[in-house]
Amino acid sequence: MNDTWHGGAAAVVALTFDVDAETPILAQGGRYARHASTMSHQSYGPDVGLPRILDLLDEMRVPATFFVPGWVAERRPGLAASIAERGHEVAHHSYAHRPPTSMTPQEERADFERALEVFQAQGVEITGHRAALWEATWLTTELVAEYGLRYDSSLMGDDRPYRVPAAGGEIVELPVHWSLDDWEQYAYLPEPHVGSVIESPAKVLDLWRAELDGMRHYRCLFNLCVHPFLSGRPGRARALRAFIEYAQECGDVSFARCRDIAAAAAADPSVPARPHRPPQVDPAVHPD
Amino acid sequence: MNDTWHGGAAAVVALTFDVDAETPILAQGGRYARHASTMSHQSYGPDVGLPRILDLLDEMRVPATFFVPGWVAERRPGLAASIAERGHEVAHHSYAHRPPTSMTPQEERADFERALEVFQAQGVEITGHRAALWEATWLTTELVAEYGLRYDSSLMGDDRPYRVPAAGGEIVELPVHWSLDDWEQYAYLPEPHVGSVIESPAKVLDLWRAELDGMRHYRCLFNLCVHPFLSGRPGRARALRAFIEYAQECGDVSFARCRDIAAAAAADPSVPARPHRPPQVDPAVHPD
Amino acid sequence: MNDTWHGGAAAVVALTFDVDAETPILAQGGRYARHASTMSHQSYGPDVGLPRILDLLDEMRVPATFFVPGWVAERRPGLAASIAERGHEVAHHSYAHRPPTSMTPQEERADFERALEVFQAQGVEITGHRAALWEATWLTTELVAEYGLRYDSSLMGDDRPYRVPAAGGEIVELPVHWSLDDWEQYAYLPEPHVGSVIESPAKVLDLWRAELDGMRHYRCLFNLCVHPFLSGRPGRARALRAFIEYAQECGDVSFARCRDIAAAAAADPSVPARPHRPPQVDPAVHPD
Amino acid sequence: MNDTWHGGAAAVVALTFDVDAETPILAQGGRYARHASTMSHQSYGPDVGLPRILDLLDEMRVPATFFVPGWVAERRPGLAASIAERGHEVAHHSYAHRPPTSMTPQEERADFERALEVFQAQGVEITGHRAALWEATWLTTELVAEYGLRYDSSLMGDDRPYRVPAAGGEIVELPVHWSLDDWEQYAYLPEPHVGSVIESPAKVLDLWRAELDGMRHYRCLFNLCVHPFLSGRPGRARALRAFIEYAQECGDVSFARCRDIAAAAAADPSVPARPHRPPQVDPAVHPD
Repeated sequence: MNDTWHGGAAAVVALTFDVDAETPILAQGGRYARHASTMSHQSYGPDVGLPRILDLLDEMRVPATFFVPGWVAERRPGLAASIAERGHEVAHHSYAHRPPTSMTPQEERADFERALEVFQAQGVEITGHRAALWEATWLTTELVAEYGLRYDSSLMGDDRPYRVPAAGGEIVELPVHWSLDDWEQYAYLPEPHVGSVIESPAKVLDLWRAELDGMRHYRCLFNLCVHPFLSGRPGRARALRAFIEYAQECGDVSFARCRDIAAAAAADPSVPARPHRPPQVDPAVHPD
Repeated sequence: MNDTWHGGAAAVVALTFDVDAETPILAQGGRYARHASTMSHQSYGPDVGLPRILDLLDEMRVPATFFVPGWVAERRPGLAASIAERGHEVAHHSYAHRPPTSMTPQEERADFERALEVFQAQGVEITGHRAALWEATWLTTELVAEYGLRYDSSLMGDDRPYRVPAAGGEIVELPVHWSLDDWEQYAYLPEPHVGSVIESPAKVLDLWRAELDGMRHYRCLFNLCVHPFLSGRPGRARALRAFIEYAQECGDVSFARCRDIAAAAAADPSVPARPHRPPQVDPAVHPD
Repeated sequence: MNDTWHGGAAAVVALTFDVDAETPILAQGGRYARHASTMSHQSYGPDVGLPRILDLLDEMRVPATFFVPGWVAERRPGLAASIAERGHEVAHHSYAHRPPTSMTPQEERADFERALEVFQAQGVEITGHRAALWEATWLTTELVAEYGLRYDSSLMGDDRPYRVPAAGGEIVELPVHWSLDDWEQYAYLPEPHVGSVIESPAKVLDLWRAELDGMRHYRCLFNLCVHPFLSGRPGRARALRAFIEYAQECGDVSFARCRDIAAAAAADPSVPARPHRPPQVDPAVHPD
Repeated sequence: MNDTWHGGAAAVVALTFDVDAETPILAQGGRYARHASTMSHQSYGPDVGLPRILDLLDEMRVPATFFVPGWVAERRPGLAASIAERGHEVAHHSYAHRPPTSMTPQEERADFERALEVFQAQGVEITGHRAALWEATWLTTELVAEYGLRYDSSLMGDDRPYRVPAAGGEIVELPVHWSLDDWEQYAYLPEPHVGSVIESPAKVLDLWRAELDGMRHYRCLFNLCVHPFLSGRPGRARALRAFIEYAQECGDVSFARCRDIAAAAAADPSVPARPHRPPQVDPAVHPD
């Protein structure tokens, strides 16, 4: 049982935090740097939400993974190291937070490399990657393998870890899903226009608990994606705490960093490989 | 009582699954094939959600109907037959999942025929049809009748089966409605942009129960439309199970495949015919 | 007390039904007549939802007001009269359901007159008006007064009846509000794109009850706007019934037709007149 | 303890009301002045919602802050003074309610000055400012300091008061957040298109309570933003009352006007200064 990716747990919780700061907004237009309110809305993440979340993780004694864009790590030099020092994992989340699907292959590669260089210069060891906006191309997993990372966490082809073949060697995929992302529940901005109604923490907690219960039934990876500028706010941080408490009280749920889950999955022969190739499209059937 | 379309039940539940896979996205642009995350989000449907749902139906001992685009059946050769082997119905859901309203009559006919050819080549018997995106044209029901199918399930003119006249012979309509579609509750994608907030399974279960109770009061057809890539996820599959359990516990609800409901309706003289023709539009009153 | 518009009740409920059928869709483009599913979604209103609602009103013994576009009354010749015969009021809801703000003054007048002619030809007496999409212009209330109607129900300047001055004589306004419209809660269509998530009847019932309780506290007009193609569906019709039951059980709520409320308000000197004129706009301050 | 910005309370509630009237709509296009229903929807705010809210504040004995666009104060001459007379604060909310990010620096300055002139002419003392649509530029806080105001309330860089450096002298920021704005919960208009589903007061109350509880845990500023044309409606006014009651019953929450909070924060050396400057954007990384 201990040789499986889940180590015998009914479900494994990967608490992941996308420390995006200003990047998801600037990726929609550098002109938004002029929007002072919006920029402050984003800097709240690393400045207020992140320390609060780190304290919360200490209090609850759970490990987590922080996906950090290289641009963010570069502008806030101590940030990545301070996360790692508290026992958490720092992982690759692009340089500029531009979705790979919006870039040429050359641009995607350059962005990918630039983030790696930032972390290397800061002495932060990186073993995994998550595409900006969860908008990977077919090149993305190739880059992950080619640069020697062990896992990606941007695809949605399963709700358990799976293997993805690549020219540079097989990698592990730790799949995500929109229903476990706090963005769709909480995010709102007038320009660029983001979101609609803002949900209450009670609803989000209810959604997360229901999904965890379902995942315990089916033995899955609960890959929760939380943004410090969203879930770092007081009422939402309390809901996150309540979720962690609920999962701990289940008694059959374990918490782990993505790199540890990926290592266990790589060593578990029962973890399946899933084909990973674009569908062939006939433009007469599906016009561009 | 047994000669009625409902066989004496207060409400009849048609569990229907639209096994769309990649098609609803590719129908919005073949270019989305480049989006690896999005394609994996869609392939989760046939690869993970569908087997889970088939097991759930076995466990609950309820029959269902699976609407499959021809493109999906063609790319995954064993899929349609494996559904039929477990006692469920496979039905026509277009070839490419392009909404008929977006095609010329010639294109709609060609798409309709191509799907039939796929199922014929696979030895899968088809007796009913559902238009992609529930966007039938006035030609759609003509095609259904002309090609000898028995029923359509794309219109919303009632909440009980009704007859639709066509040149090729009368067909039965098993009407649908957006409130019983899991898409509006659960779907989210950044590009093509789909959805807004994502609802919790508890809310969806509450909505379905309320509608079933209303339909039991009015003796209706509860035509539930579920997508494996959405409701196949763990927490949602549990909600679907809870709904089936609730309906079974009602004691006055029956479950049936669409083809069986259509056959019973065709034989029930109390099932009304509804006029089916486009409103005459005066461009001076309603500009194009 | 009996000489007041509310007759001593804590709140007065005006149940109003906008029998729009196909018009709100055709007003967005006559081309949508080609969309058979969408047209059937709309015809469900007069064909299925309306009879169900009329039976429900009989069962609950409450009067109501039906706002009917002239186009709808013309295409379904017996509809308006059959509503009036059951003791309800039929009122003017434009001819084509095009919002007045989208028309020239000449077009708005012609549309207004054409609807009146339809009702006159059918022998249906009209005393009130509601603008399509609640998008009145400043001309709208002038037309209402000029053609001898007694009230309008399209403005939102209060939550109690008020007087609006017009060249043709003062009229009574029975104000509406988006929070008491079932459209924002229930409507969904892919094209023309309408709505987002679809709410459960339980949420809508909760919203209506909370607003009624607030209105009982402040002695207001609860002007509920319901669409037969939306709230005529089974679960929603049950929620509407539960709302009526709740209001009846309050013991201090009365139900009335709009024309009766308007007549009482016209005779009640405590009903205030509200200024009704466009704000002066300086294009240097508020560009067009 | 009494020398801190919070005076020893677990959380401080700033009830703030943005008395926008017609301005947020006219700022999207002066042409909307032609939309009589929409204009009445907005005038409901000062005409009906505002008096109701002022009575509610009297009843609950809590102080509040009213942010009023100069255009609104000018058109309704007695409005600002009548608010101040009841012990509340009137503050600067632009002249025309055009978002600063949509204006040139010259336009922003002219708009800022014009509002100050209106209040000066009316003898209303102004010490604080809130940007229209919470869309401050980097110039905004400079203007606040240059014209001698003491605080701004448009940024989101923290959930407690903080200091912002400016050429004209340091000011205090009383940060806001979209989750404590009633607009995203309640607003709906068809044109200009605003909102989607309309939330129930019960949901909003639940959201506010959860955030207040979180803020009591973290000792924050609960800066609630309410619009009289939205939350002045009966059911919502009752929810606002229930929220105030809840906060009062907590026993560890205080209520204060923004100017009083700002003065206390200015005198509290533990209130931090936060850097306030635009991120440097490389157009090769984040195209405009």
